[in-house]
Amino acid sequence: MAIVQVSVLPIGTGTTSVSKWVKETYKVLEGHKDLQYELTPMSTVIEGNLDEVLKAVRDMHEAPFRTGVDRVITNISIDDRRDKPLTLRGKVDSVMRKL
Amino acid sequence: MAIVQVSVLPIGTGTTSVSKWVKETYKVLEGHKDLQYELTPMSTVIEGNLDEVLKAVRDMHEAPFRTGVDRVITNISIDDRRDKPLTLRGKVDSVMRKL
Amino acid sequence: MAIVQVSVLPIGTGTTSVSKWVKETYKVLEGHKDLQYELTPMSTVIEGNLDEVLKAVRDMHEAPFRTGVDRVITNISIDDRRDKPLTLRGKVDSVMRKL
Amino acid sequence: MAIVQVSVLPIGTGTTSVSKWVKETYKVLEGHKDLQYELTPMSTVIEGNLDEVLKAVRDMHEAPFRTGVDRVITNISIDDRRDKPLTLRGKVDSVMRKL
Repeated sequence: MAIVQVSVLPIGTGTTSVSKWVKETYKVLEGHKDLQYELTPMSTVIEGNLDEVLKAVRDMHEAPFRTGVDRVITNISIDDRRDKPLTLRGKVDSVMRKL
Repeated sequence: MAIVQVSVLPIGTGTTSVSKWVKETYKVLEGHKDLQYELTPMSTVIEGNLDEVLKAVRDMHEAPFRTGVDRVITNISIDDRRDKPLTLRGKVDSVMRKL
Repeated sequence: MAIVQVSVLPIGTGTTSVSKWVKETYKVLEGHKDLQYELTPMSTVIEGNLDEVLKAVRDMHEAPFRTGVDRVITNISIDDRRDKPLTLRGKVDSVMRKL
Repeated sequence: MAIVQVSVLPIGTGTTSVSKWVKETYKVLEGHKDLQYELTPMSTVIEGNLDEVLKAVRDMHEAPFRTGVDRVITNISIDDRRDKPLTLRGKVDSVMRKL
């Protein structure tokens, strides 16, 4: 199980708003039933088997092209820990407990 | 007003756990009263005047060195929009309304 | 054809040096004959068919685990442009010509 | 001395080409005589005193706004090591020597 942070950015759309494309990429995750995910102000964070998450991220990256966008920049951060399970909730809780 | 996503990573600590250092960097924000901020599973997101936010981020980057760490890698994403106010809540809401 | 920037970071190694692991991840690319790649001071940049590049990046992410590391953080930026070919050399040249 | 990797991306320009703005942000560095820097296919990497580098990065982030752009997304990675000097050349060489 890994945690992955992803943001998908359409380039050359002629508008400063990106929420339409964020919505398109986020909706892709509805088809990935084994993943947990959450929208944050700058990214989407996803929890699951790394290869399944990366398959979902590949689909998210493709979403803006389907609406006619010609350039997409996608940033991905993978946090993969194998000595202990990582979860979206657990990562935040382990910090909050120390505060 | 800008939104900034930041993660501060200590290198060479000898332990796979990073929550202790995430806590130290997050606590720095308590001293920055004009900023809104939120911990996500992979980052901290901060809303405020860009120069104030960057000053806070500079402080966060310094926190692990104060505990004896010798190398820190800090990743920062700035989203700065000047035709419309950006807020942590507003960015998530504008996507959620479209879903 | 896409350009991908990647950095693979081992966590909890007990040493501030990371070059040993950068070497291991970079060597993975020797097995991917259809890709062009280059080491920069902060990342590796790779040019090629996006799915092949992502397969290579997945292999690079795995490399530190094979040497006993238990946590790896990998950052990836994909630049995917479909109205014009992107190359490592072309991206730098198009800026340099304007300077 | 730290190494910083930065990319500045204009949003809503109506064109898939970004080299014009990369040039504008890169030219900002000519005014920072104490810094070493280099353009890579995905970023600019800068070596120098961390506070001076961050001042330059703040200027780079501002450059597209001066040409009429209304939204800019800037990604920054800081590598700050205090037990040993870091240089652009040294980081690449220490990996190459091991290959």
